[in-house]
Parts: sequence; C-alpha cells; structure tokens
Amino acid sequence: MDVRTVRKDFPILNQRVNGEPLVYFDNAATSQTPLSVLDAVRSYYLTENANVHRGVHTLAERATEHYERVRQKVARFINAETAEDIIFTRSTTESLNVIARGFGDQVVKAGDEIVITAMEHHSNLVPWQELAMRTGAKLKFIELDTEQKLSLASAAEQITPRTKIVAVTAASNVLGTVTPINKLAKLAHQVQAFVVVDAAQLVGHQPVDVQKWDADFMAFSGHKMLAPTGIGVLYGRNDVLQMMRPVQFGGEMIEDVTRTKTTFKCAPLDFEAGTPNISGVVGLGAAIDYLNQIGFAVIEQREQKLVNYLLPRLREVTGVTLYGPQYEHTGVFSFNLSGLHPHDVATGLDMEGVAVRAGHHCAQPLMQTLGVNATVRASVAFYNTIDECQRFLDALVAVREFFQNGIS
Amino acid sequence: MDVRTVRKDFPILNQRVNGEPLVYFDNAATSQTPLSVLDAVRSYYLTENANVHRGVHTLAERATEHYERVRQKVARFINAETAEDIIFTRSTTESLNVIARGFGDQVVKAGDEIVITAMEHHSNLVPWQELAMRTGAKLKFIELDTEQKLSLASAAEQITPRTKIVAVTAASNVLGTVTPINKLAKLAHQVQAFVVVDAAQLVGHQPVDVQKWDADFMAFSGHKMLAPTGIGVLYGRNDVLQMMRPVQFGGEMIEDVTRTKTTFKCAPLDFEAGTPNISGVVGLGAAIDYLNQIGFAVIEQREQKLVNYLLPRLREVTGVTLYGPQYEHTGVFSFNLSGLHPHDVATGLDMEGVAVRAGHHCAQPLMQTLGVNATVRASVAFYNTIDECQRFLDALVAVREFFQNGIS
Repeated sequence: MDVRTVRKDFPILNQRVNGEPLVYFDNAATSQTPLSVLDAVRSYYLTENANVHRGVHTLAERATEHYERVRQKVARFINAETAEDIIFTRSTTESLNVIARGFGDQVVKAGDEIVITAMEHHSNLVPWQELAMRTGAKLKFIELDTEQKLSLASAAEQITPRTKIVAVTAASNVLGTVTPINKLAKLAHQVQAFVVVDAAQLVGHQPVDVQKWDADFMAFSGHKMLAPTGIGVLYGRNDVLQMMRPVQFGGEMIEDVTRTKTTFKCAPLDFEAGTPNISGVVGLGAAIDYLNQIGFAVIEQREQKLVNYLLPRLREVTGVTLYGPQYEHTGVFSFNLSGLHPHDVATGLDMEGVAVRAGHHCAQPLMQTLGVNATVRASVAFYNTIDECQRFLDALVAVREFFQNGIS
Repeated sequence: MDVRTVRKDFPILNQRVNGEPLVYFDNAATSQTPLSVLDAVRSYYLTENANVHRGVHTLAERATEHYERVRQKVARFINAETAEDIIFTRSTTESLNVIARGFGDQVVKAGDEIVITAMEHHSNLVPWQELAMRTGAKLKFIELDTEQKLSLASAAEQITPRTKIVAVTAASNVLGTVTPINKLAKLAHQVQAFVVVDAAQLVGHQPVDVQKWDADFMAFSGHKMLAPTGIGVLYGRNDVLQMMRPVQFGGEMIEDVTRTKTTFKCAPLDFEAGTPNISGVVGLGAAIDYLNQIGFAVIEQREQKLVNYLLPRLREVTGVTLYGPQYEHTGVFSFNLSGLHPHDVATGLDMEGVAVRAGHHCAQPLMQTLGVNATVRASVAFYNTIDECQRFLDALVAVREFFQNGIS
C-alpha cells in the first residue's frame, strides 16, 4: 500500500489548519470518508433514489436491490451466518440501546445480573444501567488488571449463574486495549448468558468474525469505518433476534394492522421502522468495498507500524503519562501532560494543525478508575503517516514548552 | 419559476425507464434530491468532517458550528420559538416513536384516552397502540366525513376531558386530505390534551408554522423534502420537552455518569444519543435553503397547478375510482382501476416509465375504512410538469386497455 496514493482518496486530509498541514488524529471519534464512498452516495441520488421495499416501480426496485445487497455484504464482512442477522440502525449507540430495550427487557428479571467492564463507553453502560433500574437486575463490572487490560480473573468472578447478559467493548475507545471476546463468550455461555459486543472501535481496523467470537449480538458504526454518518449495524444471531421485540413501530416493519391490533414482520425488517437511511447503507457498502480492496492484512500492518512508532516515543515525552497497555495496543492513545489541562493540550495541538480529542471520551467511570477527569486522546488510521506521528510528537513538545514559558 | 431550469437540479428525473422518459410520481414516498444538497454533503466530507460537540480541534468546531446552524435554520423554517425545540432524529417514524415512548409514558395513565384519526400512517398509529397497551389507556379514532375529510364533529365527540394526547397527520399520505390542525389543537387544549402533528406529507409543500398551529409536538422527515435519507426532525415546545424522558442513552446526551447513576443534559441534546447523522443534517440545511430560494408561494402555486390539472382528468378516466376530497387536495392521489389489482396497474405504469406506488401505503386501517385492500398512489412535486401529468393519464388508459385486451 502506497500511503500517498491512498491519501488522494481522502482530500480532506490535504489541508492546512491554523497555517499548518492538518494531522488528523481523531479517527476514534470519526474516520474520514474516501471519494469512492462519496461517489457511491452521489450516484445513488443521481440514478436510483427511491423508497425501499414498498414500490413496484423500477427506481424502487433498484434502490431495494441495492439496499439488500449491502445487507449481504455486511453479513460477509463480519461473517454473519445470513443477511437476515443484519439490522441497519443509526449508530452503535442505537444498536446497543435497541438490544438493551428490545432484548434485555425480554430476558432480564429482578435479581439477575448484567455484567459489563470498567472501560465501557457510556453507550454500552447507560442502556444497561437503565435496564437494571427498569427490571431490578444488578449491574456488575469486570475490572482492569494492573496493565489496564481486561482482567480475566475478574471476569471469572463477576460472571455467575445469575448473569443474563455480558456486554463488552471489543476495543477500548480510551486505552487502546483489545478484549479477548472468545474467552469472555466462553465464560458467559457456560452460564447461559448472552454476549453483546460493542465493536465500534475495532471494525475497520481488524477483520471481525462474529461466529469465531461466538457473540450473540454485535454493534458497530459506519462513520468510524469510512462510511457516512447516520448508519450503524446491529448484528444478532437468528435465534436471539427471535427473542427480541421491536422498540420502534411504523412503516415497513409491520405485517398487518387493524385499529386494535398489529403484527410485525420477521427479522431484520421488524427492527427497521420507517424509511431507513438508504444512502447511508449505500455508503456503508462502498466503505466495505474500499476496506476489502486494501485488505485487512495491509490495514493492520500499516496501523501497527504507526503504533510501533508512537507507543515508545509518546511514553518518552517529558511530562507525558500514557494510559493503556504496554503491548497489543490499538491505534488509540490516551495521555496527559503533567500540569496541563487536557483541553489546553488539545487546543495547543490544534494550533499546530494536530486534531486530537480531550475529555472523558464518554467513559467517565473509566476516568474515575484512572483517577483523572479527562485525558488527551490521539487516534490513528491506516491513512496516517509516520511523518504525521513525528509532527504530533514535535507539536506535543512545543505545546509543553509554550505553556512552561507562559507560566515561567 | 422555470420548471426546465429547476429540473436541471434533479438529474435523476432526466432518464428513461423501460424505454420511456421517467415520470416520477412517487414523491409522497420520497422526494428527489437537488444537486445543491448533494454538493453540500460532499463539501462537508471534503472539508469539515468530524464528530460534533466533543472536540476542541478546528474540524470538530466547524462541524459542530454547521450542525447547530442547521438546527437554527430548521427552527426558523417551521417557526419554532428557539433552536432548542429542534431534535434531530432519523425520520418522522422515529420522532413519533420517541414522543410516544418518551413523553407518552410520562403523561398517559390507565383510563386516559389517546385520540388519533382514521387516516393515520402506521407510524402515527402503532406507537400509540403500543402506548395504550403499555399504560391501559384507550385509543380512539376521529372519523372521516363523507367527503373523506376529517370530521370536526367526530373530533369534538372523540376529544373528551379524558383525552391526554391528540395525534394527527397534517396531510394524509393516501387521500390528499389536509387536516385543520388549529381547530383540533383548540379542541385538544380545551381539555388540556397535548397535540402531536405528523407533518411528513406537508413539510416541503407548504410553509409550516408550529406556533400558528399551536402544536405541542411535530415530526417530519428530510427525505420527503429534498434532503437525504436518514434525517428527521422532532419539534417539541420547550415546556413539553422538559416533561419528556430520553429513550436512547449514550454519547453526548449525558451530563454525568458513575457506575451507578447517570444524569442527562438538557433538551435538545439529551434526545440525541450517539453520533448523529451529521452529514444528513448538513443536507437538511441545504434542502431548506433550496426550498426557501424557490419560495413556498411559487411551490404551492406550482403544485396546485398540477393538482388542478390532474384532479378532474383522473376522475374522468373510465374505470377509475378516485379516493380523497373533491377540493383542497394535496398532490397525493389514490385510486383504483376497475377490475385490476393495484400492483398490476403500478407495474403496467412502470412499463410506460411512470413511477407510482401500489399497496396499503402503511395505512391499513384507512384501507379498511375505504373498503379496499390497496390503492394506486400517484404523488407530484413542484418539479413535475403538466406534460408528465398528461403522460401519466395516457399511460393509465394504455394500462387499462392492455389488461382489457389481455382478458378479452
């Protein structure tokens, strides 16, 4: 893979911010979108835009065929057994909420336990907190070990015969930690609990195989894997989808209605109420094509090269406290600069053209575990370069020195 | 307005379907999208794509500023008091479901009454049916009069001191009937009931003024008013939004989280869980600009001209039964051709290049009232032409003759 060629597909990267060449290191918040995805969406509106499923006319048939073809593509992309296991949502957050409400309310009773981890994003925490409050179930947490990886000892302790749902992130959006989903799934399934995987931070970076994971449910977002905003995926194995009840009603999800009674279609359509984000689905399909064209072998190798460059050097910057594991690190780096507020660091980096996040990253309980209010987060993608990594490191030193001089 | 100039903004209209020039008469299902909207979306991804609200870097600030600017634009577009009354959703269907779940569950108790109309789309029926089942409330229906307009006598009868919610469509997606929202709101507010308006079929065709309507809630979809798919609006007056509880959790809607307790932000952010459809919002803003540029005086005049051409001529086609009112008709026409299945009529029209819908149009209870299983529905927009109207009428005669000859 020639990164200069690849970067031509992402014109947004080729701009100056505050007079400096943009270094986009906020990929964990949203990835950038290649031209082929933008072209696919535009082409959809120029040639086949129509509402899906409901029409017999040619445009409606084209749109429906395209929409359903992407469903099959997504199934292959995550190795789901069938396309019927794929539900289109707005986002990971919506997917997780639908699972908690539509499935959780069906299977979780008072006294049951829902097990999540200490490093969940709020979207994989608050829906379960709410479910626990609605049902009288107990919410429990798998802790991190001293290396800020998920503790399997803690998992074995927390997952008990009372556990009904184990909901875990596949990769932390703060620490860069990867979760051993298989091992957790084994523990969960031994006690007949269901496994829900938040894969928002993994999809697009590594190949995903829901069958290999033995996940019952999985969620991810298009906009974090090169697709447009407003499109997400809820994967559910057919047998668990049968147990889930729709949470939104209306439009094509309905089989039959009278004034007093309604019956619903089968999965996945019963979970897609109203007109879906059709062009978002088209864009998602094009994003999968783009990723497949480069290939995950290349993407992983490329991102690992950036991680291997950044990890030791970032740790060595004077004043930096780097969170997360020492090895097996994704491209997400959280840190603080001694004596500086993370927002000041991020603002300083922006002055140097470097785009990073600062804050709690929607993971406040993890911040509480880390003993901080916030961190700076830099996150890379395969289209980033070693040169950008170095510019980020240089900018970090410049920011530190700027504030030191300002104070002195 | 020169329609030939306008049609250049919609290249999709300039194609042949089954060898014939496309006549797109399925606008009630989804409108087509002008180039300026596609350009705005593309430009967003080429220059400012970033996650909103959470970042201090330049791209994130640009994206957030753009996103919030559109919120203000939408507020002006429907004359909401403030931008804080505007919540971005996926669609009308989602908006209505959020109101039924988030607000309905807070205010409706056993024995209360929810009043809707005989002509609601399933999306403004089933969420209330479900709410009635959850709460033990009663779902009641305002009937149509003999002209297939909403009967105000029936409304006065159905709305009682027990009524908590009156949920009505602003314009039928089947009949072309317009609802006198003000009059219903007056009846509803006399008994302290809340008014929910499904404006999916009105927005983009007529100016909407939620304050003039005196609506408490209102919902519409972007994709029916020139914007992309996957973006909708939930309007709620500030005081009723205060009474509504979020139904999805996670991301930027959260104020503060511990392992055991979560507090939420204020409206509208607390109702926008997860990364929203940012580029959909950008497209919605561009669609509003486009509509405003043409102006509703021109759009209404233009659509009325098409209606005035079609209404008497369609009624005169031998074998046609036309549903809906005789006057004050929107651009939505439902009909049947004697002895023919609506799907056959729609398929026949498609062979002539004419795109219409056939089916129950997600309004099965209305079909039951009309005494049919399905209708053919042709729906026009301001970019359609008198020539297309005539081609549709000619095609209808051709379809009738084809099937007559086939049978004879």
